[in-house]
Amino acid sequence: MPKNQSNYKQLFSHNLRRLRESKNISQENLANLAGLHRTYVSSVERGERNISIDSMEKLANALNVDIRELLDPKLLKE
Amino acid sequence: MPKNQSNYKQLFSHNLRRLRESKNISQENLANLAGLHRTYVSSVERGERNISIDSMEKLANALNVDIRELLDPKLLKE
Repeated sequence: MPKNQSNYKQLFSHNLRRLRESKNISQENLANLAGLHRTYVSSVERGERNISIDSMEKLANALNVDIRELLDPKLLKE
Repeated sequence: MPKNQSNYKQLFSHNLRRLRESKNISQENLANLAGLHRTYVSSVERGERNISIDSMEKLANALNVDIRELLDPKLLKE
């Protein structure tokens, strides 16, 4: 990931919000689907969390996407 | 990620070892390049760590690969 681009944490948080909103899922619903707390999901979306791979997996599964989609820089430009 | 397949933590640990070895880098060198402790890298490769996105980024950058390559199920079959 070239240094001048945002890092993966910002990329993940940006894509998480974009994909959640594109599927019309609220933060609360996503948290319930993922088995995570709503405030945790909201802090992840704000890029405040050094999220773990297991929590990343729970969110990817809850959104029914491959984890790599949440780490795709292309989504940043959409 | 279909349930019957290994989860992302196991996939990451498998791909980390495979890519490191394919580049002839020792665990010690990878740890130095990534700014992580060697014992931490070895426990990640054994799939024992719920690794954070920042540490995943350090390892991907140290191997000069995109983080998604470390999460690619296709590598499992090679």
